[in-house]
Amino acid sequence: MTPLFPRMTVAGVGLIGGSLALAARAAGLVGEVTGYGRSEANLRLARERGIVDHVARDPAAAVAGADVILLGVPVGAAAALAEAFRPHARAGAILTDVGSVKAGLVEALEARWPARELVVGAHPIAGSETSGAAAARADLFRERRCILTPTPVTDREALGRVRALWEGVGAVVEEMPPPAHDEILARVSHLPHLVAYALVGAFVDARVAGRRVLDYAGSGYRDVTRIAASRPELWRDIALANGSALRAALAEFRAALDRLEGLLVPGSGDALEAVLGEAAAARRRLGGER
Amino acid sequence: MTPLFPRMTVAGVGLIGGSLALAARAAGLVGEVTGYGRSEANLRLARERGIVDHVARDPAAAVAGADVILLGVPVGAAAALAEAFRPHARAGAILTDVGSVKAGLVEALEARWPARELVVGAHPIAGSETSGAAAARADLFRERRCILTPTPVTDREALGRVRALWEGVGAVVEEMPPPAHDEILARVSHLPHLVAYALVGAFVDARVAGRRVLDYAGSGYRDVTRIAASRPELWRDIALANGSALRAALAEFRAALDRLEGLLVPGSGDALEAVLGEAAAARRRLGGER
Repeated sequence: MTPLFPRMTVAGVGLIGGSLALAARAAGLVGEVTGYGRSEANLRLARERGIVDHVARDPAAAVAGADVILLGVPVGAAAALAEAFRPHARAGAILTDVGSVKAGLVEALEARWPARELVVGAHPIAGSETSGAAAARADLFRERRCILTPTPVTDREALGRVRALWEGVGAVVEEMPPPAHDEILARVSHLPHLVAYALVGAFVDARVAGRRVLDYAGSGYRDVTRIAASRPELWRDIALANGSALRAALAEFRAALDRLEGLLVPGSGDALEAVLGEAAAARRRLGGER
Repeated sequence: MTPLFPRMTVAGVGLIGGSLALAARAAGLVGEVTGYGRSEANLRLARERGIVDHVARDPAAAVAGADVILLGVPVGAAAALAEAFRPHARAGAILTDVGSVKAGLVEALEARWPARELVVGAHPIAGSETSGAAAARADLFRERRCILTPTPVTDREALGRVRALWEGVGAVVEEMPPPAHDEILARVSHLPHLVAYALVGAFVDARVAGRRVLDYAGSGYRDVTRIAASRPELWRDIALANGSALRAALAEFRAALDRLEGLLVPGSGDALEAVLGEAAAARRRLGGER
């Protein structure tokens, strides 16, 4: 049987791109996979691990004959890469990505692709602070959400094939307009990252009575700030690309924090407990607490 | 050999009190242990699990003959409990606690204890969102910090015995003045809790284009907000008891957040990456990232 995509190019064989290649191969969804990237060592590892069949460090060789080209690179690097691939892609090649911000990025990709209707924005909600081909694993997307962000021009067949790819690796696929994606992710992902970075940044060199404050961090602080270990260049790109929605989310967060701070006064115990209790109940409904 | 404390009373046989009793018994540091608390079911479980030998729901019976009385109750309940125990404690009984806020609490306990020099404030930096005797475990304090907060009046021998208890269960013990403790913990514990509660509270009912925002929370959001599942009544007490240091910590956090928000503008990519990178490096030095 012909696979869904006989030839796939994965540009950026990191945690996300590498995991998708591994999972798609395991599921028989793709035929030959070519990996493209800047780091020779990472590409070599990707081939050794069986994530890709071929590697390429030249854009023309990378996309020649590809049915689908996956941009698995930081948000800030994707548009330039599409530009570099454009003259070498075959007619009918689908361009897709995995970026954490969609509106501006999908628009930029559509503007750069010969057939803008063949651009399909995607964002699998999976991943961690690890990176590189070494971190890739075939089960990364199983039962995780993957949001597809078609625009009015997106070709329905191309969209359907990208959906089949993600569903084939176990993801729960959903479609929404790019701006809705960005407003939601600003709140549940981009803002929490900014907050975590700020919670570490505020106290990097802090001392009290000669003692380094961060020496006293316990498991709670480690949990809250874990994602602040994420790669700064990724989150720089994401924060800048989604600045407007992120500022709105920040304002909502500040309002919630102001409300709590306003209750740090004698006599407000009941009101404070009620506000904390509402958040605690909502957090418990999400699950994953220790 | 006579144990360090022939008779110990644990008031509040929860995660912390229960774990200390278990660990101290295992290490032969205590003889008989009496558990005191409001919940009959929890006390029964504590006896079934071998955490305590006896249970008491009456203050007089709870502390009769005790060499050391451990207050393992929420910060807001400790002073009233000391008051209730006071008429029944034997002369020479040491009063200690495990509260997450020390300055106001130690002062309140000293004011209520017949021999104020026998009050020894303690705070083991361990614990999680779980609670009750069911969650107690003997290894909870192993290689965790325990901060003792003696005041100028604290008896050196009493301090030494409480230190021996914590060292005996594997904790790394350190002494500091109560206000220094509170300023440090405001930054690495109390503020992060407030932030986590606010990050959930801000979006409890939030919707974007008809979709519930929290349905899209991934592992990052779950990590950042995990401690918001903590018991509201505990954190109400802690936040109110340490309001002044917490407000100062909040101001420092807000400044760090303001700085990041100020960099969410075109052309500030390098500066933003530098600030995020400094925090990421500091977070990685703490360890415990995935």
